[in-house]
Amino acid sequence: MTEINRQIVLAARPEGEVEPRHFRLVETPLAPLADGQVRVRNHYLSLDPYMRGRMSESKSYAQPQPLDEVMIGGTVGEVVETKHPRFAVGDKVVGMFGWQEYGTSDGTALKKVDTTHVPLSAYLGAVGMPGVTAWYGLNRIIVPKAGDTVAVSSAAGAVGGAVGQLAKAQGCRVIGIAGGEEKCRYVVDELGFDACIDYKQNNLRDDLKAAAPKGIDGYFENVGGAVLDAVLARMNAFGRIALCGMIAGYDGEPVPIKQPQLLLVSRLKLEGFIVSEHMEVWPEALKDLGTQVAQKTLKYRESIAQGIERAPEAFIGLLKGRNFGKQLVKLI
Amino acid sequence: MTEINRQIVLAARPEGEVEPRHFRLVETPLAPLADGQVRVRNHYLSLDPYMRGRMSESKSYAQPQPLDEVMIGGTVGEVVETKHPRFAVGDKVVGMFGWQEYGTSDGTALKKVDTTHVPLSAYLGAVGMPGVTAWYGLNRIIVPKAGDTVAVSSAAGAVGGAVGQLAKAQGCRVIGIAGGEEKCRYVVDELGFDACIDYKQNNLRDDLKAAAPKGIDGYFENVGGAVLDAVLARMNAFGRIALCGMIAGYDGEPVPIKQPQLLLVSRLKLEGFIVSEHMEVWPEALKDLGTQVAQKTLKYRESIAQGIERAPEAFIGLLKGRNFGKQLVKLI
Repeated sequence: MTEINRQIVLAARPEGEVEPRHFRLVETPLAPLADGQVRVRNHYLSLDPYMRGRMSESKSYAQPQPLDEVMIGGTVGEVVETKHPRFAVGDKVVGMFGWQEYGTSDGTALKKVDTTHVPLSAYLGAVGMPGVTAWYGLNRIIVPKAGDTVAVSSAAGAVGGAVGQLAKAQGCRVIGIAGGEEKCRYVVDELGFDACIDYKQNNLRDDLKAAAPKGIDGYFENVGGAVLDAVLARMNAFGRIALCGMIAGYDGEPVPIKQPQLLLVSRLKLEGFIVSEHMEVWPEALKDLGTQVAQKTLKYRESIAQGIERAPEAFIGLLKGRNFGKQLVKLI
Repeated sequence: MTEINRQIVLAARPEGEVEPRHFRLVETPLAPLADGQVRVRNHYLSLDPYMRGRMSESKSYAQPQPLDEVMIGGTVGEVVETKHPRFAVGDKVVGMFGWQEYGTSDGTALKKVDTTHVPLSAYLGAVGMPGVTAWYGLNRIIVPKAGDTVAVSSAAGAVGGAVGQLAKAQGCRVIGIAGGEEKCRYVVDELGFDACIDYKQNNLRDDLKAAAPKGIDGYFENVGGAVLDAVLARMNAFGRIALCGMIAGYDGEPVPIKQPQLLLVSRLKLEGFIVSEHMEVWPEALKDLGTQVAQKTLKYRESIAQGIERAPEAFIGLLKGRNFGKQLVKLI
């Protein structure tokens, strides 16, 4: 019996908002495994904002996602068949198999992980790309000192939640920005931030002033747009901004920075980064993050959609900020 | 006979454009010199864009210029009377006496300079604050490698002209941006830039593409606004931007950055700076700049207004880009 691999391919490039019609579910029979190959049953697919950029043809930091090919994405799963000396059936692995139920690989970029103390799905979140993203932006760009005030947008998300907890552990005052009362409660009560501002209250500037009375020394940006403008006005001299995402402008028109002179007036340092270009920090960062997750000092939450067919709708929800913590798709 | 000191004070704060009525010329008799004081007859006053920021009360990196007090500014001159052990009559000095013909000081922040190989006025330009500004932004923020393409706006100005020549000496391809054909010719023919774009031709994007076919690795920003937008679109991955001035927005409304996502897409590093906050580099920078000016490998031009009463009009011209090279006022 030939197994069927359910996959989601890019059917069309969005001009503005992403819609379900931009994706297509296809069923592909699995080819027999060749020598040197390993087959993985994916358990979880990671959904991340960067995928929106890949769907367009405009200038981005990476090649666009080809049409009619399986959508790119990080996955964790279990080896179910192997003709590769380094992998055994039952091995848990993290890889980049994309939006599909099975992955076949020659072992390149496939990494075995230990799930004794860290749940498999965490390797897509706090102990994976989002965690290292948080770690890099905080420790290599913001470089906070104890007593600094650090702010982060998308604070209830996988990256933002980690940024705040890591900064808090370094003795900073930590301000989150998130959408909605429930997310803000989670950020303060469960993640331990000092304050969280609900940007949907449309009172960002005053709320920031109240939450960060001494100004903001470090800012980790995931959204851009009006949130960035408001934070810029509160940045202290010599503040550092790690520019990780600008989700506010991903659909349609870019959102301007209205008062760029603040970058000069406050002598700010701003740096855009992509964590996959800084592989040199991954071992140190993953070790640090894995230890903190195992000891439960680094907390996270997951939004899990069930089944590959739900991936498009979950991804659209992520772009609209409907997720709560790390957005995953359970594939099994 | 009591000597009269002619001074220019801030008469009113501009809301939009600076006008002559915002200044007032006053004549003040010089008080007798006290013990420990030194009196300087100022020969040149430096006019610089930063003064525009001081004239307003809005948030800036420095205290606003007080109303009815002598306008701030760098000066060079000669000691004419002294009751200070460290200074003798005839000493040439650089200081911050502001917009006036005489300065009286207890010696603090007054520095003797050697005019054997470097003209006195150059200590307000290439071997002074503008030169060190160029040196810091280039060598501490842009940090160019040989073969990089470096661009600079206000290329015919005191700072911009130095940036390009210093970068050229380090083996870079150097692109200037300036206003008008005459300035561009000067930048290429006299200062030795590889190309200079006249932004008044309204063809910035295509002209930049032609002048920097391999993209731009380092950008020294003096103007902001539309020029910054156009350069951002040509920046290479991992480019560095030294943000020194945003003269485009000094009068009236700030000019937005229209496509801030380029900062992320191209993983740029942008840093605003004020050279007076980096005193640690001044000795090294001044030595380097002084040597290059003495050897005539670092060239500059001066626009000189005659007489303190002309300072307001010369300053307004500077803000409108009418100067050519370093704007000075000759006071004697």
